[in-house]
Amino acid sequence: MIDQNPTSLLARVVDPSDLRRLSEDALPAFAEQLRSELLQSVSRSGGHLSAGLGTVELAIALHYVYDTPRDALVWDVGHQAYPHKMLTGRRDRLASIRQREGLSGFLRRDESPYDAFGAGHSSTSIGAALGIAVAESLASESPAKAVAIIGDGALTAGMAFEALHHAGGMQADLLVILNDNGMSISENVGALAKSLGFAESGQSLTGFFNTLGFAYEGPVDGHDLPSLVGILKRMRGLSGPRLLHLRTRKGAGYERAEAEPIRYHGVTPFNPAEGLVSRPSPVTYTQVFGDWLCEMAAHDSKLVVITPAMREGSGLNAFAKRFPERFFDVGIAEQHAVTFAAGLATRGLRPVVAIYSTFLQRAFDQLVHDVCLQGLPVTFAIDRAGLVGPDGATHNGSLDLSSLRSVPGITVMTPADAQQLRAMLRTGIESGMPAAIRYPRCAALGVTPAATALVPGMLSATLPPALPIGRGHIERHGSGIALLCFGSLLKEARELSEIIDATVIDMRFVKPLDEDLLRDIANSHELLVSIEENVIAGGAGSAVGEALQRWGHPAHLLQIGLPDRAIEHGTREQCLQEAGLDVPGIFDTIARYTATLESSSATLRPRQSAVNRNQLSLSRNTMFNGVTRSLTRFRMR
Amino acid sequence: MIDQNPTSLLARVVDPSDLRRLSEDALPAFAEQLRSELLQSVSRSGGHLSAGLGTVELAIALHYVYDTPRDALVWDVGHQAYPHKMLTGRRDRLASIRQREGLSGFLRRDESPYDAFGAGHSSTSIGAALGIAVAESLASESPAKAVAIIGDGALTAGMAFEALHHAGGMQADLLVILNDNGMSISENVGALAKSLGFAESGQSLTGFFNTLGFAYEGPVDGHDLPSLVGILKRMRGLSGPRLLHLRTRKGAGYERAEAEPIRYHGVTPFNPAEGLVSRPSPVTYTQVFGDWLCEMAAHDSKLVVITPAMREGSGLNAFAKRFPERFFDVGIAEQHAVTFAAGLATRGLRPVVAIYSTFLQRAFDQLVHDVCLQGLPVTFAIDRAGLVGPDGATHNGSLDLSSLRSVPGITVMTPADAQQLRAMLRTGIESGMPAAIRYPRCAALGVTPAATALVPGMLSATLPPALPIGRGHIERHGSGIALLCFGSLLKEARELSEIIDATVIDMRFVKPLDEDLLRDIANSHELLVSIEENVIAGGAGSAVGEALQRWGHPAHLLQIGLPDRAIEHGTREQCLQEAGLDVPGIFDTIARYTATLESSSATLRPRQSAVNRNQLSLSRNTMFNGVTRSLTRFRMR
Repeated sequence: MIDQNPTSLLARVVDPSDLRRLSEDALPAFAEQLRSELLQSVSRSGGHLSAGLGTVELAIALHYVYDTPRDALVWDVGHQAYPHKMLTGRRDRLASIRQREGLSGFLRRDESPYDAFGAGHSSTSIGAALGIAVAESLASESPAKAVAIIGDGALTAGMAFEALHHAGGMQADLLVILNDNGMSISENVGALAKSLGFAESGQSLTGFFNTLGFAYEGPVDGHDLPSLVGILKRMRGLSGPRLLHLRTRKGAGYERAEAEPIRYHGVTPFNPAEGLVSRPSPVTYTQVFGDWLCEMAAHDSKLVVITPAMREGSGLNAFAKRFPERFFDVGIAEQHAVTFAAGLATRGLRPVVAIYSTFLQRAFDQLVHDVCLQGLPVTFAIDRAGLVGPDGATHNGSLDLSSLRSVPGITVMTPADAQQLRAMLRTGIESGMPAAIRYPRCAALGVTPAATALVPGMLSATLPPALPIGRGHIERHGSGIALLCFGSLLKEARELSEIIDATVIDMRFVKPLDEDLLRDIANSHELLVSIEENVIAGGAGSAVGEALQRWGHPAHLLQIGLPDRAIEHGTREQCLQEAGLDVPGIFDTIARYTATLESSSATLRPRQSAVNRNQLSLSRNTMFNGVTRSLTRFRMR
Repeated sequence: MIDQNPTSLLARVVDPSDLRRLSEDALPAFAEQLRSELLQSVSRSGGHLSAGLGTVELAIALHYVYDTPRDALVWDVGHQAYPHKMLTGRRDRLASIRQREGLSGFLRRDESPYDAFGAGHSSTSIGAALGIAVAESLASESPAKAVAIIGDGALTAGMAFEALHHAGGMQADLLVILNDNGMSISENVGALAKSLGFAESGQSLTGFFNTLGFAYEGPVDGHDLPSLVGILKRMRGLSGPRLLHLRTRKGAGYERAEAEPIRYHGVTPFNPAEGLVSRPSPVTYTQVFGDWLCEMAAHDSKLVVITPAMREGSGLNAFAKRFPERFFDVGIAEQHAVTFAAGLATRGLRPVVAIYSTFLQRAFDQLVHDVCLQGLPVTFAIDRAGLVGPDGATHNGSLDLSSLRSVPGITVMTPADAQQLRAMLRTGIESGMPAAIRYPRCAALGVTPAATALVPGMLSATLPPALPIGRGHIERHGSGIALLCFGSLLKEARELSEIIDATVIDMRFVKPLDEDLLRDIANSHELLVSIEENVIAGGAGSAVGEALQRWGHPAHLLQIGLPDRAIEHGTREQCLQEAGLDVPGIFDTIARYTATLESSSATLRPRQSAVNRNQLSLSRNTMFNGVTRSLTRFRMR
């Protein structure tokens, strides 16, 4: 795939210093080669395609004109940064992108000195670049330059505006490049999108950005490389806050992607000559959520849905089409999404905020202050909870249970299969209280066919009823060990339980915890093992521990969850394995823990419990033998 | 205080329906009476003064024209809403504002049907009002109207912009009133403040707001009541998104407050004829922080400070004056404050983000994604952690330990006195890693005189060295019970320890926890009691519990902290008492817990520990006797 032809321009450019040795005349041909290789590589590896095709010329022009890495290029999000990666010594690794040990799909300071600031979440680039610009101006007589490159979708997020406002106010030396392709992942929403669309003359945008203290220039064609180089050379010589408005085409240079930029935003491997082929794939929790929404909305006219620019990712296409007046894409605006939902709820509606776990971090205050403190009935449908796989560390939903659980007044649920997700969403909606349901990015277990015909006002026969709040469920009776599962890893727990004859509890609710059930289980088991896809610190297992300690209960608790470090990109399965959350991993952790208990019995004597002591020893020994046997079996796989 | 003269206009207006029976001619006289009573009342009770004096005419005009409470007035923050409270049936309770069982200092849906949306944190009004407007338009043929009233300081926060952008894009029927008094709590910063200042003709702002999809009108005099009523009547008849730009004066009608609006923003009781008198008051942690910053900055030229519009509140006046080029007030922009700091850190600076615990909730994602995931050396100085007293539930810093502790890569510290705060700040700065130090809103313990002369580059003699990371300290050796203190309540623990002969540990670090010390203490004590000013769910005590469970350690742990509900306003002392965090409260909780352990011993036998069993019973009995005796003593106080 990588061009080995020594006469090609591509082969001559390993890093930006090579690029700068090319003549300006050679750049368009170089761009063509780069784009072609980008398409070939991403079509084989999968990854973000459309955005990168749109920034080939921009990335070349920036590295050609600016003295990188001394000058800082701060790319927003990272979807658009593949050409930048190819230009900065990572061309030969592009095929590994988003794969275990491969390049990150986003920007990482530890991946390259050319990645001036790490990214992954949207709209951080202007603030970070401003920080760099200010630090340079404090430290040096000839400060390095800072450039933020941000898409039109990302520009409208609050923190981008905050940064513009601050930079404009202090008249910092900062260039913001607005890479306007008319899209977020979906079509853009909001007033600015319309205004950008009208800005042929640049007239009204000049006033807008001047009010924010920025000089405005544009719109200019972001694919006209010679002209871009000229403009950037001039810009680099100026100082003060400037915004350069580029018009680019998402998917530029690959017809199919230009025609369907949403479909080609992130791709699985495909043949460029054929284009993407729809293949049957397992139904995900995301789809289960989307289907349920449509069913429930047909039944409940008060249900409305809010998404911060994640219509596709959150499974809302069908809902948006069927119930357009009840669908609100607020743009990349997580804070507003939640407070807007709270406002809707005050007048009797039942808002569902569809949001990724990692992005809900942006709206934590609004969840606390605008929803929970007021006890407003907003339901949070939290997708991508736990490990997300290829998107990696920035996108893992590792922390939500710890923070949500601390908030008074919210019900927190963790479905273990498709039917539960549906039942829990309904539980949330019908509770009349703040509620959160978090589910992972993967194929849904226990999928049953969704209702096909929605009759307004009629309850679909497949719509499961609400669950009793705060009630868990015993899945399997075993002895000695009880596995307390919070959501996604119930299947693994079931599998494991067959090996070690453990009890399996489907806890369902992180808050309120089923304390009656917990007490029964604690009284009748020697060891409780909590299992969750959240960091251990403060997670669901800690809720179990808090209850046991409050009762002074002697049961041992082993908390299994995500470790206190970032889990990098890979397949979801690889990530779960790295975190020790596959069956062998959970198994090993239990074995190590029980071994510790045994070996430490001199100083830390085994606790007594309500279980008969002989029986207890027996069960422990039984488990131990089982552990050893099964461990061997696993290791031989 | 309250006007009982039946001939006065004031006495005739209990709620807005009475107001609407007044003739327009009578309104200016009514406004004068209202303003006079507001000044008299707040000068006696203390509270937010300047902002309310500036909105007397606006509040009257709004309630006169709009059909409240059916029409929704959404006041931002609440500082400016005292006249609104007086007009809506709460005049007779105004003197109780911010006091236990009295009126809230902010807006509360459960306080009045006229409070359309709860508030306290800035910049939520536009999003909430938009939600109300949209819900009304979905539900009704003749929807009620929604009005957001927002200050110029609050308007520049990201979420306000997100809401404008969304409302403008969907062309919702929403009136936003920009109450432009030229101030946040301090002077405004940022580009928009300058642009507002220049907007005599309204020319450039028209373009700005049109770009956001809003019709703009203004600026008009917000104290000209007859003209305001006329404008609002016209506005109420229009539809679509409109922004009305009012010029008001903070402190209007009270000369001293107009002259010194920052000083009169929030006041303690004073005589209006004399004005505020500076009285010596105990040194707070806020001041200790501010003093330390100046000392450290003189020594370390890399130190820079970022505040989201809380210069006064965070104790930064001196620093801002002495080191203006290293002081960054970013405006009400918590998200940007943190990402900007991260950007500064990438180029070798040592940023300190000075922020309140409750406002850090707005920047949780940025802390996780932009600082900790990249391992950047940003130090968070988290003021107002724990219970804040008069500001009440919206401002309590109850959750930070739970969420911070879940984040990989951050050091979390809880100082117990002034010197520790200073040492921990230095520990954070010098660690070269993300660090957080959280301290309460109260007088600092152990204050020593700050250095008076700062010599650039010289280390002040009073500047304590960094602490060893993750090391706690034994304060007192006792028996049976060990009190593990995380920060602010160490004094209470010391006091209690004298009564029950408990060991006292100053834990200092929530993350990393001093596990060596914890193990020693757990091995030598029967009961561990963690004490913190954070919710129990996932807090510092849970970190202790997680470690004990990981070790399979038999020690009992009682977690004492904030309950799983909101703590309302009152003095800090009253709030601590309500939460059970004063000495008698802690005492009671321990007594109840030990009683439970005793009584449940039939089914839950007392755990064995490394402590000799006889000794254990003895110490338990000793403690019990002590508890009973001392309880009696406390109750007799």
